[in-house]
Amino acid sequence: MSTTGRNFGSDNTTPAAPEVIEAIAAANTGSLHAYGDDPYTARLTALASELFETDVAIYPVTTGTAANALALSVLTPPYGAVYCHETAHIATDECGAPEFYTAGAKIVGLPSPDGKILPAQLDAPLRHAADMGVHHVRPAALSLTQATEWGTVYAPGEVQALSAAAHAHGLGVHMDGARIANAIAHLGSSPAEITWRSGVDVLSLGATKNGAMAAEAVVFFDRARAEGFAARRKRAGHLWSKMRFLSVQLIACLEAGRWLRNAGHANAMAARLAAGLGLLPGVRMVQPVQANELFVTLPDRVIEALLAEGFEFYRWTAPAGTSGPVIRLVTSFCTEATDVDAFVAAAGRYAVDQDARS
Amino acid sequence: MSTTGRNFGSDNTTPAAPEVIEAIAAANTGSLHAYGDDPYTARLTALASELFETDVAIYPVTTGTAANALALSVLTPPYGAVYCHETAHIATDECGAPEFYTAGAKIVGLPSPDGKILPAQLDAPLRHAADMGVHHVRPAALSLTQATEWGTVYAPGEVQALSAAAHAHGLGVHMDGARIANAIAHLGSSPAEITWRSGVDVLSLGATKNGAMAAEAVVFFDRARAEGFAARRKRAGHLWSKMRFLSVQLIACLEAGRWLRNAGHANAMAARLAAGLGLLPGVRMVQPVQANELFVTLPDRVIEALLAEGFEFYRWTAPAGTSGPVIRLVTSFCTEATDVDAFVAAAGRYAVDQDARS
Amino acid sequence: MSTTGRNFGSDNTTPAAPEVIEAIAAANTGSLHAYGDDPYTARLTALASELFETDVAIYPVTTGTAANALALSVLTPPYGAVYCHETAHIATDECGAPEFYTAGAKIVGLPSPDGKILPAQLDAPLRHAADMGVHHVRPAALSLTQATEWGTVYAPGEVQALSAAAHAHGLGVHMDGARIANAIAHLGSSPAEITWRSGVDVLSLGATKNGAMAAEAVVFFDRARAEGFAARRKRAGHLWSKMRFLSVQLIACLEAGRWLRNAGHANAMAARLAAGLGLLPGVRMVQPVQANELFVTLPDRVIEALLAEGFEFYRWTAPAGTSGPVIRLVTSFCTEATDVDAFVAAAGRYAVDQDARS
Amino acid sequence: MSTTGRNFGSDNTTPAAPEVIEAIAAANTGSLHAYGDDPYTARLTALASELFETDVAIYPVTTGTAANALALSVLTPPYGAVYCHETAHIATDECGAPEFYTAGAKIVGLPSPDGKILPAQLDAPLRHAADMGVHHVRPAALSLTQATEWGTVYAPGEVQALSAAAHAHGLGVHMDGARIANAIAHLGSSPAEITWRSGVDVLSLGATKNGAMAAEAVVFFDRARAEGFAARRKRAGHLWSKMRFLSVQLIACLEAGRWLRNAGHANAMAARLAAGLGLLPGVRMVQPVQANELFVTLPDRVIEALLAEGFEFYRWTAPAGTSGPVIRLVTSFCTEATDVDAFVAAAGRYAVDQDARS
Repeated sequence: MSTTGRNFGSDNTTPAAPEVIEAIAAANTGSLHAYGDDPYTARLTALASELFETDVAIYPVTTGTAANALALSVLTPPYGAVYCHETAHIATDECGAPEFYTAGAKIVGLPSPDGKILPAQLDAPLRHAADMGVHHVRPAALSLTQATEWGTVYAPGEVQALSAAAHAHGLGVHMDGARIANAIAHLGSSPAEITWRSGVDVLSLGATKNGAMAAEAVVFFDRARAEGFAARRKRAGHLWSKMRFLSVQLIACLEAGRWLRNAGHANAMAARLAAGLGLLPGVRMVQPVQANELFVTLPDRVIEALLAEGFEFYRWTAPAGTSGPVIRLVTSFCTEATDVDAFVAAAGRYAVDQDARS
Repeated sequence: MSTTGRNFGSDNTTPAAPEVIEAIAAANTGSLHAYGDDPYTARLTALASELFETDVAIYPVTTGTAANALALSVLTPPYGAVYCHETAHIATDECGAPEFYTAGAKIVGLPSPDGKILPAQLDAPLRHAADMGVHHVRPAALSLTQATEWGTVYAPGEVQALSAAAHAHGLGVHMDGARIANAIAHLGSSPAEITWRSGVDVLSLGATKNGAMAAEAVVFFDRARAEGFAARRKRAGHLWSKMRFLSVQLIACLEAGRWLRNAGHANAMAARLAAGLGLLPGVRMVQPVQANELFVTLPDRVIEALLAEGFEFYRWTAPAGTSGPVIRLVTSFCTEATDVDAFVAAAGRYAVDQDARS
Repeated sequence: MSTTGRNFGSDNTTPAAPEVIEAIAAANTGSLHAYGDDPYTARLTALASELFETDVAIYPVTTGTAANALALSVLTPPYGAVYCHETAHIATDECGAPEFYTAGAKIVGLPSPDGKILPAQLDAPLRHAADMGVHHVRPAALSLTQATEWGTVYAPGEVQALSAAAHAHGLGVHMDGARIANAIAHLGSSPAEITWRSGVDVLSLGATKNGAMAAEAVVFFDRARAEGFAARRKRAGHLWSKMRFLSVQLIACLEAGRWLRNAGHANAMAARLAAGLGLLPGVRMVQPVQANELFVTLPDRVIEALLAEGFEFYRWTAPAGTSGPVIRLVTSFCTEATDVDAFVAAAGRYAVDQDARS
Repeated sequence: MSTTGRNFGSDNTTPAAPEVIEAIAAANTGSLHAYGDDPYTARLTALASELFETDVAIYPVTTGTAANALALSVLTPPYGAVYCHETAHIATDECGAPEFYTAGAKIVGLPSPDGKILPAQLDAPLRHAADMGVHHVRPAALSLTQATEWGTVYAPGEVQALSAAAHAHGLGVHMDGARIANAIAHLGSSPAEITWRSGVDVLSLGATKNGAMAAEAVVFFDRARAEGFAARRKRAGHLWSKMRFLSVQLIACLEAGRWLRNAGHANAMAARLAAGLGLLPGVRMVQPVQANELFVTLPDRVIEALLAEGFEFYRWTAPAGTSGPVIRLVTSFCTEATDVDAFVAAAGRYAVDQDARS
C-alpha cells in the first residue's frame, strides 16, 4: 500500500471524496424501490438536466468501460465502425469491451501526436468505406476523448468541427468523458457548450477518477437515442438493485459544483508540477499540460532514482516524433501541493546531479 | 418511498447493513493500487478460502446478473446449452444476460412444482441432444439456484446427485447463490458442504440481498476453471478501479459469520410470518417455507385490503397444480418481528372478515 | 449410400432437380461482376417480385439455417424474444444459430399438439414480459413455420390472425418457409396471399428440400426492413462471389411454376403413402397429412422389420397426448409412386403378420 | 456483362472450371445421407490427407470469409487479439466477419510495404499486451495471407520464422490461403511444406478463385484443434445439407493436380502481363509479381484510355513509399494469352502516345 502523497500513477488509485462516502451513508435508511425507481435517482436526472441545460436521460453505471461500451452499443450496428484516436481508452484499455457490447463492431484508431483528431482525418477512411461497399464495416460513430489520453483538451470549436463532419456522414458522436470535469475546468466553458451544443450525442460522464467511489453515467442529450438502453444496461448486469447508492455518488459529485472544483484542483496541481519540473535541466513536457496529466521526458537515471525513492508513476510510450524516456504523472482531487513540491524537489535533486555528471 | 416496515416486496429494496457502510468508510484512506491489487482484496480471497475450506479464486462484481452471466460464460461454449429450473433467475429475470455473456448459448428451463430439479430430468434432454448431434446445442452446464426461486432449499444430497449426473455427461455445475446464505442458515451445513463438496464448480455468491450495498462474487473452487475469467470481467466493464470498496463489502458480510446471522434472521422472520399466517382461515403456504420467501394463497379481497393499507408485495403466478391467487412475501436481514406481527394482524383482520362473510 | 427409392428419411437427402444442374451449367460462361451485380441476380429479383405480386428485396443464401438466422437478426434486438412453436427448426435444429446471429436474443417455444400456434398463446408471455419490464427480454418477433414441423399447414386466415396479434404488440412476423412450396401446393393459395397479404414481414424461402442444390432466400416484402441486411449477409460469410450460381438455382426452381409442381408431387406422394398405410391394421396417422411429411404410429415390430429391409426413416417423439412408437416419413420431388407402393406393401406384409400374431 | 477477355478486375469474376460443373452433375444421382455423411465427403478427407501428407480434418464451406472467420473462432477467445498484415482480407474486406464469429476479438493490422509481415513486428505489440495485462486483449493468433494481398508469396522459411515467433508466445497460426495454390505454384514447394511443416495450425484453403463454383475449406492439421468446429459451422448456417455438392467441387479442384495447374496458368499469365507491360515507358511494377496479381503504376491518361476501351480493373491505393496512380490486374485460370497480349498492346499504344507527348 502506498501513501497518497507519492502516488502519481493514476487518478484511480485515489480514495473517494469524503462527501461521497457521507452521501452513501446518508442514503442508507429504510427500504426503497429497487432498480432506479427511487427519489435519489429522480433527483440525479433533474440535477443533470439542470447542469446540462436540457432534459437528459442519464443512466448510472459502475465503470468507465461499461459506460463507454454501452454508449457505443446504441450508436453502431454490429457491422459498424467507430472512429477514435488510436490511444483512446476504447481502443486500447478495455480488453475489447466495445467489441463485446456492440456484438463485433470495429474500433478504428486514427493517429495524431497530441491525442486529438481532426475532421480531415475522417475523409480517407469514410471514402474508403464508401468505395468498399458491403465488404467494409459501415461508418457509424465518432468517439472523442475529453480530456484526451495525452492530457490535452478539445476546445468547443474543435468538437463542433468534428461533430459536424461526423453528422454530415450519418455518424453519431460519443464523448468519453472519463475526465470531462478536468476538461471543463480547463476550458471554463459550460457542460452544455462542450457537449450537446458542440454536437455530442452521447456522453460517458466520469466521476470515479474525480472523487466518486465507483460511479459513471451514460448521458443522452436526445432522449430518443436512449431507446433500448435500459434493457442493454440490465442484460449487461449493470443495473444496480440498490440504485440509490450509485445515484447519490453522482449527486454528491455534481451538486454545488464539486466535480469542477475537484477537477480544477487536480489541474492546478498538474500545472504546479509542470511549472516546477519545467525549470529542471533535461526535463521537458512532451504534451501541453491542460488537464491533470503530464507527460514528461527526463533522464533515465532520474526516473530510476524517483522510483527507488517510492514515487509511483508509469513509464510511457513516447508520442510520435519524440524520443527519449517518457513518464506519465497524474494528479487528482486529493493531490496536495506539498506532494507536488516533494516530487519536484526530488526530481530536481537527481536532475542536477545528473546534469553535473554529464 | 415506503417505510421498511411494510415492505415485503423483495430483499433488494433493503438498505445496506450498517457494518457494510462502516467498512466502506473505513477503507476510504489513502491511495491504493487499483483493479484489485490491494490488501482488502487479498484479505477477501483469504477469508473466502478459509470459509470454504479450500483455496478459491474469488472475483467480486456488482450485481447478481453479472455474477451469473460471467460464471456461465466460462462453463459453456457459444454453442452450448445450460440447464436450469424454468423459473431460474438466469432464465427469466436477466433480460438475456446469459445469452449475451456466453455469445449465444441456450438456457433450457426444466419444470417442477417446487423450484428444484431432479437428476432424472436431465435424461431426456441429454439423450435428445446426443441424438441430434451437430444440429442441437451441446449440453454444457447445469445451473442450480440455492435457495430456489420458490424459497425452497436443496439438501447436500440433492446437490450431490444433480452434480454427479451433470459431471457424468461432462457438464459443469454452477450454483446461483443469490440467497445461498439463507440456504446455509436453513440447512446448518457448512459452506463447503453445500458447494464444492457436493460437486459445485462455480458459485455466484450473493451478498446484496443480505446486507451488502452492491456486491456479489464469482467463486471458483477449482482455480484452473478461472482461466480467462479476469479478462471476461474486465471486458464486461465489471472490474472496479477502486476495488477495495467492493471487497470490503464482501468482507464485512462474510467475516464473523455475519452473512449467516443476517440470513438466519431473515429466515426466522419468514418462519414467524408463516406461522402467523398459517393460522388464518383461507390462507395456505403453497411452498415449504425454508428460506426467506413465502408463497401464500389467500383470498383476493384480503390481498387488496393489505395493499390498500400500504403493505408492499407482489402477486405471483401459482405453481403448477395450484389454483387461486398467490402472493410472494420476502423477509430480510432488517425485517423486524413487529413488522411481521403487524402484517399478520392486518391479514388476520381481513381474513376473519372474509371468513365471516362467506 | 442408399438408393433413392427406399429413403423416406428426409427431403434433404435428395439430389438436385435436373433443371437446377442444367441452369448452373448454362450460367457457366464468361466472367461476370461478382457479389450479385450480375444479370441472373437481377432476373431473380424481378421473378420473385412477379411471383409475390410486389416489389421484394430478395437475398439468396446457401442454407435454411442461414436464411432463418439472418432474417431474425433484423427483426429483434439482442435483448429481444422471438416466439415460435416449440418444435420450430429455429428452436431445436440450428445449434443456436438464431442466438448467434441476433447476438443473444431468446427463442421462446410455445406448445401445441399439431405444430401450429394460436394467437391466444401470445397473450400470457406478452403480458408477463410487460409486467417484468427491463428484467425480461423484449418481445420482438413471431416466427411461423409453414408447412410446420408436424407436416401441417397454416391457412391464410390463421396466418392473418397470428400476424395481427403480433403486429398489435409491435412484433415483426417471420415465416420459416423451408417447405413453403408444399404449403402453397396444399392450400392452392397464391404466394402473396399466404405471406405478405397475411401479414408476413420477412420470409425464409426454401428451395433446397424441393429441388435446389443449396439455395434458399430471405425475402423482404417491405424493402425498408432490409436496411443493413446486405452487410449482415456479408459478415456472416454468406455472400457468394460467384452469385450467379446461387441465383440461377432459385430461378430454375421458381420459374414456370416448377417449385409448386415439385412440391405438389411430393405432397401427392405423401397422400398416397398415407392412403396406403391407413388401411393397415395398427397403423394410424398422428397428424393430418397436408404437406410432404407423415407421422405414423405403427407397431414396433413393423418398424424394425422395415428398417431391416433397408427403408430409411426416423423414429420420432410422439406428439403431446399420443402414445406408442411414431415414425416420420418424408416424401420429395423425386419420390416415385413405385417407391411409395413398395413401402406400403412391405409395411402391409409386416403389419398383417403382426396382426395375425396378436 | 463483360467478356472474360478484358476482365482483369478479380479472379472471382470468373466462371467455374468445366471439371467442377461436370463433377457436380456427376454427383447428382440418387439420395445420400445429408450433412456430410456421404462418400464424396469421405473421399475429400482422404484426398486432402494425402495431399498434405498428414491426417487432416477438413470442413468445406462456401466462402473465403466464412472459412477465415470460422477458423479464427477456434484460435482466439472473445477477448483475444489476432495479428495480421494491415491489408489482410480479414482486416479490411470481410465487413467484420472475424469480429462476429469470434464474439468480438480484435483484428490488429501490422504494416509493411509488400504485404508480408516479419517476426520482429510481433515484438512490440506482444510486449505491450503483456504490460497492459487484463486491460488489453490477449494475444491469441497470427494470421498470414498466402499469397498476400500484394501478390507476394511467403517462402517456407519466412512462414517458419513467423510461426516459431507466434508459437513461442502461445499464439495459434492461421493461414488465409484464398490464393494458396498460386503461392504453391510459385514456390514449387509441397502443400505440406508451406503449411503445417512450417507451423501453420489451421488453413483456409481457397478454391473459388481458382476454379470452384463456391467452395473453400477449413483444414486442421492437428485434428484436436477442430474440437467444437462442426458445431460452429452448423450454427453459422454453413453446413450444407446436400454436402456432396460442396465436396465434389473441392475434389475436382484438388485431384490430379488441377488446382496447381490452374494456379500455375494464372501465375504464368501474370508473368506474361508483367513482362509485356514492363517494357513500356512510364510503367512500373510496384510489387514483385509472384502469384496472379500485378500492381502497376502507369500514367493516369493510359489508365483512363484502357478503362474507356472496356478493360476492367481497379485503381489501388499505392503501397507505402510509392507515389503515382496504381492499378491492380488479376489473372486467373481462364485468362488466355491472347487476352494478356491484347491488354499489353492496348497499354503500349496509349503509353507510347503518352510518351510521345511528354
